[in-house]
Amino acid sequence: MSENKNMPKPTLPEPTLRRLPWYLAYVRLLEAQHIEYVSSTQISKEINVDASQIAKDLSFLNLKGKTRIGYQVSLLVKKLTDFLGFKSEHKAFVIGVGSLGAALIQDVGLSQYGLKIVGGFDIDKKIVGTSVCDVPIYDMSELEQRQKQQDVSIAILTVPVEHAQEATNQIVSSGLHAIWNFTPFRIKVPEGIVIQNTSIYAHLALIYNRMGEKSDKKIKG
Amino acid sequence: MSENKNMPKPTLPEPTLRRLPWYLAYVRLLEAQHIEYVSSTQISKEINVDASQIAKDLSFLNLKGKTRIGYQVSLLVKKLTDFLGFKSEHKAFVIGVGSLGAALIQDVGLSQYGLKIVGGFDIDKKIVGTSVCDVPIYDMSELEQRQKQQDVSIAILTVPVEHAQEATNQIVSSGLHAIWNFTPFRIKVPEGIVIQNTSIYAHLALIYNRMGEKSDKKIKG
Repeated sequence: MSENKNMPKPTLPEPTLRRLPWYLAYVRLLEAQHIEYVSSTQISKEINVDASQIAKDLSFLNLKGKTRIGYQVSLLVKKLTDFLGFKSEHKAFVIGVGSLGAALIQDVGLSQYGLKIVGGFDIDKKIVGTSVCDVPIYDMSELEQRQKQQDVSIAILTVPVEHAQEATNQIVSSGLHAIWNFTPFRIKVPEGIVIQNTSIYAHLALIYNRMGEKSDKKIKG
Repeated sequence: MSENKNMPKPTLPEPTLRRLPWYLAYVRLLEAQHIEYVSSTQISKEINVDASQIAKDLSFLNLKGKTRIGYQVSLLVKKLTDFLGFKSEHKAFVIGVGSLGAALIQDVGLSQYGLKIVGGFDIDKKIVGTSVCDVPIYDMSELEQRQKQQDVSIAILTVPVEHAQEATNQIVSSGLHAIWNFTPFRIKVPEGIVIQNTSIYAHLALIYNRMGEKSDKKIKG
């Protein structure tokens, strides 16, 4: 995929990829305040990541800070935004337009991060044919045909958990390449399909547990 | 916190806590199919976690499978649901009722996992005084007073990134104990406050990157 096939493509570790959006969020704030330069030490203080780690992460994007001056803020914003894919347009379908699916269609934040939801799919005849925020809701049986027409790559999976695997199979056979799984079910896909699990309900369990809920008593009881 | 102070409280590793909801999602399906017993090997095949790891994780909840029979499905469902705190009611405020905040208020899924959103807060006079799905939206200045009246522990942070830290400070000083941070900003809190980051936009970056977007070309350009 690289332009220069002789140069090995740098492999970006996932932890780096997870940190880059934090840097971006912070330098965007600096940019809004018309601050021109920022050092890795300063970023480090703000977001609680080691300065040397930040320098290393940014070096993956060929970004190097200047001695005593640091990084140019506007360049950081631009390079990070580009690199993270937030400027490109990525088309997506929402599979399962229940309350979470509809909520994601309504979230304008996603479009600011490069995600364009162009259709929703459901099996419920009551909502098929309607639309949410101008996004049309189709019958699940039309998935393959619509995918071909609109060349959509990403499926956002928000069906009830008991339909998660079945919907996944249909998504894969319809030619979509990536599944953003919001269900708590561990879906299985063939090799080559990208999966990102965002189990918001599992995050709730983490919060409850750390808050020291009465779970101990319950297990022992 | 334990009933028996002489017994050391088992420390639950975070990876275990992240896996438990997957087990729950799967055994709930089995329960709906009236299946009575399940082995760790069977769970393992379905959700792609090592059978010995599953047995170890479940032993934290004092759950042990019987030889040749496995675990009792209904008991697994009950113990996991209880342990994860999904049956208790946890009150929460949504801080920042923009599109994502409003979307979360509308998601009935959260209430099925024990989260009860009892109020939204914003600084926008146009929405203060209104309500979303019967959840009243208050002015941000009322946060402390409302927290005391309703004894709410969890703040769901969905403000614009530039207000993330400021809102966090107000949440902490108002007496809430946990912050579920949906902003891409790395908020800082005093010790003792629970933070859970759910950076859905960062997850988007992971999807884009793995899909082999043209990011390489852009860095080099």
